[in-house]
Amino acid sequence: MNRKSFIKKAAMVAATGGLLLPSCTGHKEKTNEGLDLSTRYKWKMVTTWPPNFPVLGEACQLFAEWVNQMSAGQMTIKVYGAGELIPALEVFDAVSSGASEMGNGAAYYWAGKAPSAQFFTAVPFGMNAQQMNAWIYRGDGMKLWHTLYKNFGLLPFPAGNTTMQMAGWFNKEINSMDDFKGLKMRIPGLGGKVLAKAGGTAVLSSGNEIYSNLERGVIDATEWIGPYHDYIMGFHKIAKYYYSPGWHEPGSVLENIFNLKAFSELPYHLQVILETASARMNIWVISEFEAKNNEYLQKILAEKQVEIRQFSPEILATLKKHTNDVLSELAESDPFAKEVYTSFTNFASGIRNWASYSEKLYHEL
Amino acid sequence: MNRKSFIKKAAMVAATGGLLLPSCTGHKEKTNEGLDLSTRYKWKMVTTWPPNFPVLGEACQLFAEWVNQMSAGQMTIKVYGAGELIPALEVFDAVSSGASEMGNGAAYYWAGKAPSAQFFTAVPFGMNAQQMNAWIYRGDGMKLWHTLYKNFGLLPFPAGNTTMQMAGWFNKEINSMDDFKGLKMRIPGLGGKVLAKAGGTAVLSSGNEIYSNLERGVIDATEWIGPYHDYIMGFHKIAKYYYSPGWHEPGSVLENIFNLKAFSELPYHLQVILETASARMNIWVISEFEAKNNEYLQKILAEKQVEIRQFSPEILATLKKHTNDVLSELAESDPFAKEVYTSFTNFASGIRNWASYSEKLYHEL
Repeated sequence: MNRKSFIKKAAMVAATGGLLLPSCTGHKEKTNEGLDLSTRYKWKMVTTWPPNFPVLGEACQLFAEWVNQMSAGQMTIKVYGAGELIPALEVFDAVSSGASEMGNGAAYYWAGKAPSAQFFTAVPFGMNAQQMNAWIYRGDGMKLWHTLYKNFGLLPFPAGNTTMQMAGWFNKEINSMDDFKGLKMRIPGLGGKVLAKAGGTAVLSSGNEIYSNLERGVIDATEWIGPYHDYIMGFHKIAKYYYSPGWHEPGSVLENIFNLKAFSELPYHLQVILETASARMNIWVISEFEAKNNEYLQKILAEKQVEIRQFSPEILATLKKHTNDVLSELAESDPFAKEVYTSFTNFASGIRNWASYSEKLYHEL
Repeated sequence: MNRKSFIKKAAMVAATGGLLLPSCTGHKEKTNEGLDLSTRYKWKMVTTWPPNFPVLGEACQLFAEWVNQMSAGQMTIKVYGAGELIPALEVFDAVSSGASEMGNGAAYYWAGKAPSAQFFTAVPFGMNAQQMNAWIYRGDGMKLWHTLYKNFGLLPFPAGNTTMQMAGWFNKEINSMDDFKGLKMRIPGLGGKVLAKAGGTAVLSSGNEIYSNLERGVIDATEWIGPYHDYIMGFHKIAKYYYSPGWHEPGSVLENIFNLKAFSELPYHLQVILETASARMNIWVISEFEAKNNEYLQKILAEKQVEIRQFSPEILATLKKHTNDVLSELAESDPFAKEVYTSFTNFASGIRNWASYSEKLYHEL
């Protein structure tokens, strides 16, 4: 359609529908009012990831670039990898105290401070990335998360998701629940508690120790993330079996956390820029994981050094039963945890019912 | 950790690791340089949705708000529903000509102008929302889409996804492929072509005619979106069967399209604001569909006026075979369509292989 006929039709719509047409298209006028642009902000972002960590660290850098670009240079954010300014597990405290204005990590790292934080990253047999986003953005998730973190002077936004993980690398076959007895596995958080209920031992290892611990037999098994990151770690060279599915972390949410006072004192347009850039970061991370994981799964398969296995339905059913016990205990730990647990499980139950008519059937096509 | 110990530790890291610490935290300085803020932009967004259409129209309003907020009022966008300024299916031309600076719709509406546009919305038995985003953001999807639309003076960004749809509402049982013979169904695009191969007739009906056409028997069946929108249309009151899965639209991408010249002439910070707000809109729409569809599925079930059915594996296998034929014909229609088809099918094949270890198994947990 040419411009003339467009304008003619638009005028007809206006005449018949009572609409007021703007006097011209692409109208511009000179103004500076309402813009608070005199103050430049230089912020720090401390992260729980090693410097330049694939996907997760890269996303932090992109976030900083987008914020810088959208604010036309009014706000610059310098990203620090773990250990560059503070150790990984001090991110929460550093942002809470205001020593750093913002940080990036995952809520379940802070379970020691707030047990219910774990619901905002991942729950075994919980929700996948798309469903977690639905609960957080369009269910009660965000409100509950903000309420919890407010106690620490923090404001969180989702800023990525690992998507469905793999169950991990094993040097012992897991053919029945008996094989979990005495199993020493590096598996943090709620997954570790479920392993303990199954008779195994959850071992803590920092990222850089896992490879040698698995190689030397200090641990029998480890989970990490998915094929992309796992391949970089080289686990396929020293483990016998690579198990799926990642029952313990079906969609782990990553977070941007802001010092609440620093955030509140920003001009409003920069607040919205930070929130919106976090959402873009979220979908970028999900997309990057999806795009990269098959590529690296193919490398792992091609090198033929590890056997890919799947947990039996019986094993998964028993792990799920143990999970329900672990979650019930967590829900009883304090009244707020109970509130989050109730919101999470109700939402998960509903959305999984809808998935049984939609996404589940998609994967069977 | 208190601030004193943080600064002490940070200083130690700096001393041992050679890092330069910023001289103070939350550093601010006065500046206005580099900010192009003297020109205010008032844009129009024409859309293919009725005014205030749930989810899709709401998301357009939110997009306009976020852009206004992030630009501190420098850019305002007025959203027009279909028919308010121009009819729904003139959005592409209106933005292409520059009569409107931007629009919102779905690429498959423009199949008549560019057959390969259909790959950027939905392909039967194609990819779901998460996978489409991976292809577009982190595969070759975006590059190909931009190349195609550049021919029309347009720049597209993904701005939502309906997620997995339902197969539709039927007044005839579909127990075998024979039942598709002579079936008159409202189903647009590639899905309609597949129906034709199965012996049915794809009927065009605009949104406001579908209900009466189904009620009067002018059509035997119709697809629409998913339980939320379908419930609002009231189809459960007049159809006998509600079928899943939505094989024809497993993850339909919605688009923001910009007039390329208007976009290019914007200051760079506003360009990034528009792209970033589109990404936030994308994840908002996906989350809203996920959150609402089960709620309305429950209403449909509770009213007990329709029977929920599922296509048999044999029917789905045959529809898939017909789909492959339809896609091959589309790929042969022009060299660019072939290029998009190849990129799409290669990416889909890889990501679906990864899903067989991850998301598919998640839904079986």
